[in-house]
Amino acid sequence: MVKSKKPEQNLRPLESFDDSKKKLRQIFMNLASDIAESKPPVLRIPVRTASNTVYDEHRQILTLGERMSERRFNDISEVRSFMQTLLLARGIYEALQHDDHPTIRDLYYYTLHTIEGTNIETFNSQDESNNIFQDIEVMTGLLREQMGVVAESRGALVGEIVLQSKGNKIDCSKFGIGAFNIPSLCDQIQIVSVDADYVLVVEKDAIFQRLNDYEFWRRNKCVLITGKGQADRATRRMVRRLNEEWGLPVYVLTDADPFGWYIYSTYRAGSISLSYESFRLACPDAKFLGLTMTDLEKYEVPKDHLIKANEMDIKRAKELLVRDPKTKKPRYPWFYESKRWRQEIHLFLDRRVKAEIEAKSSKGFRFLSDVYLPEKLANKDWII
Amino acid sequence: MVKSKKPEQNLRPLESFDDSKKKLRQIFMNLASDIAESKPPVLRIPVRTASNTVYDEHRQILTLGERMSERRFNDISEVRSFMQTLLLARGIYEALQHDDHPTIRDLYYYTLHTIEGTNIETFNSQDESNNIFQDIEVMTGLLREQMGVVAESRGALVGEIVLQSKGNKIDCSKFGIGAFNIPSLCDQIQIVSVDADYVLVVEKDAIFQRLNDYEFWRRNKCVLITGKGQADRATRRMVRRLNEEWGLPVYVLTDADPFGWYIYSTYRAGSISLSYESFRLACPDAKFLGLTMTDLEKYEVPKDHLIKANEMDIKRAKELLVRDPKTKKPRYPWFYESKRWRQEIHLFLDRRVKAEIEAKSSKGFRFLSDVYLPEKLANKDWII
Repeated sequence: MVKSKKPEQNLRPLESFDDSKKKLRQIFMNLASDIAESKPPVLRIPVRTASNTVYDEHRQILTLGERMSERRFNDISEVRSFMQTLLLARGIYEALQHDDHPTIRDLYYYTLHTIEGTNIETFNSQDESNNIFQDIEVMTGLLREQMGVVAESRGALVGEIVLQSKGNKIDCSKFGIGAFNIPSLCDQIQIVSVDADYVLVVEKDAIFQRLNDYEFWRRNKCVLITGKGQADRATRRMVRRLNEEWGLPVYVLTDADPFGWYIYSTYRAGSISLSYESFRLACPDAKFLGLTMTDLEKYEVPKDHLIKANEMDIKRAKELLVRDPKTKKPRYPWFYESKRWRQEIHLFLDRRVKAEIEAKSSKGFRFLSDVYLPEKLANKDWII
Repeated sequence: MVKSKKPEQNLRPLESFDDSKKKLRQIFMNLASDIAESKPPVLRIPVRTASNTVYDEHRQILTLGERMSERRFNDISEVRSFMQTLLLARGIYEALQHDDHPTIRDLYYYTLHTIEGTNIETFNSQDESNNIFQDIEVMTGLLREQMGVVAESRGALVGEIVLQSKGNKIDCSKFGIGAFNIPSLCDQIQIVSVDADYVLVVEKDAIFQRLNDYEFWRRNKCVLITGKGQADRATRRMVRRLNEEWGLPVYVLTDADPFGWYIYSTYRAGSISLSYESFRLACPDAKFLGLTMTDLEKYEVPKDHLIKANEMDIKRAKELLVRDPKTKKPRYPWFYESKRWRQEIHLFLDRRVKAEIEAKSSKGFRFLSDVYLPEKLANKDWII
């Protein structure tokens, strides 16, 4: 399945910040009319706790449940967080109006001050402000990037893919040993064309560089992406877009250990603590390509190449199969309900060993790129 | 001082791995001739301890002293590390011969096995192998990258600079909101042209993205680089190359805290534990642009925008002015011998507060890019 170019007129238009401005403005206007009508002003905010995090079986992602909280100006225990929410929302709105793209920290300092005539600070810490910021995200249903707020980013990509940003066409097959550094606001970039059959997400940057050096992406017609460890938001979003906008299957390559599985899990379904992000950042279609525990036997990884699992590994692995004590529902259904994943995790818990992807180099430096990956893909030997 | 293009024939030729192959081969040949002459084979390896780390005042970098150790095959206490050194060196040599660029971990797995007829492993851990790898670096005088060995990388750059890799010209002014992801083996990239007056190194990725978004590099004719926190090797090497090959001054922008100073210090002079790298990675010409402690007053950063220094900060700051108890020499001469730096550090130790670069946003989101940075540069208000 080779993707052809999309004609320019069919390109997904750049996400505009107008909707975000409108949504924020609407919240301000509602409050203003409440006040004009002498109603006590109230903000309605979805509850962000783990107990209000549910697995959406249809979309196969973690998401927030229906529970809402109210934040009232006329309640002495809520007036401070009410003020903070509006203050920060105003900061975001002002930045949008001037086409500025601050970070959450910029917004914190921008809104931090001593309230006139008092010795009270608008925020006592960045933690407080971060928390309010997340409230604004769920209140508006807009993620930070949709409101033009920049976060740290780490990821890189390379392949037969042409991007467009600020009028520049960026051909990601022409970077030699370099790569495209994915920015935080990656929805401000258009994907102009893709000539690839799939996306290969690589946990480790050094493996990404090595596969890029061999031009693995060219020989195997794929887009190569790395989040350099636990994935940042922009890398996850880019993976999701390639899957959603271009229909490319996504395969994830990590070490054979619970940390690698967790990285895969974040790409696939999102994280429990930030489940409200999943609707844009998770990619339920992502498949785990390896390194699997069964690969260790199949590819005869020598015993001395395996690493003894530590307590944290064991704990993590067990957690993946846990049920919530209250709801009795599995906490990670995409692991729990998959026969193949349960086998994988039990095999790990039996053997209590893990392995790094680099262990493949015992059979030669090109074994990973020339034998293991092509074979796994040809045999559809992945885990869903 | 605008840099023009270098004519193609004057481009610095790509570093070839031939020299590395020759050096390794020479070591093997010397041992072979020792054996042929019935001399006991010996490897001579510079000592990598802190006590053999000296500050080269002329080059203004940390470097290794003259002390050498000998590793003998005929000494029962040294034969294992002798074997390991040769085994790993052979792995590096074999990779070079096949144009493979493994990581240190790949090399570990490549050389790890049970020695025939025994139950002894060639390496007991990756730490053991990493240690031997560093011995090979100092023994040959070649850094890992010169031997084609890939490390994780993190940095990104953008600006009026054209690079060349594998026959592709890469124009780093055409990435829109994206950037060029600097690979580990960045000496395999040629710098074809630079139209910039200086290099601005930014500690934080989000600040880098924000300055890129405003096209700060275009308006201020600079190359913008970030190492995303503590700098990785490739970013340091790239900064050094822009300074050395193109004569560009280098300014470093970090938070106002000892961690920021330490990041600056690594760019400038290298690190004590890896002083043998400095000859290629350090950039003694790098100046500290800010955020300085004096800036906090000069730019009237509000008190509530300052953060109380913690014990680790205080400890770090004091360390920067320490003298070695044995040699009585300052441990960080580039701090100790600079009047301006001593003032800065003492001011910090007096006030015991630190500040983040984002604190500048209290005066507006563009204060950093439109006022602070241009003013500091125009007034030459940096610390050497």
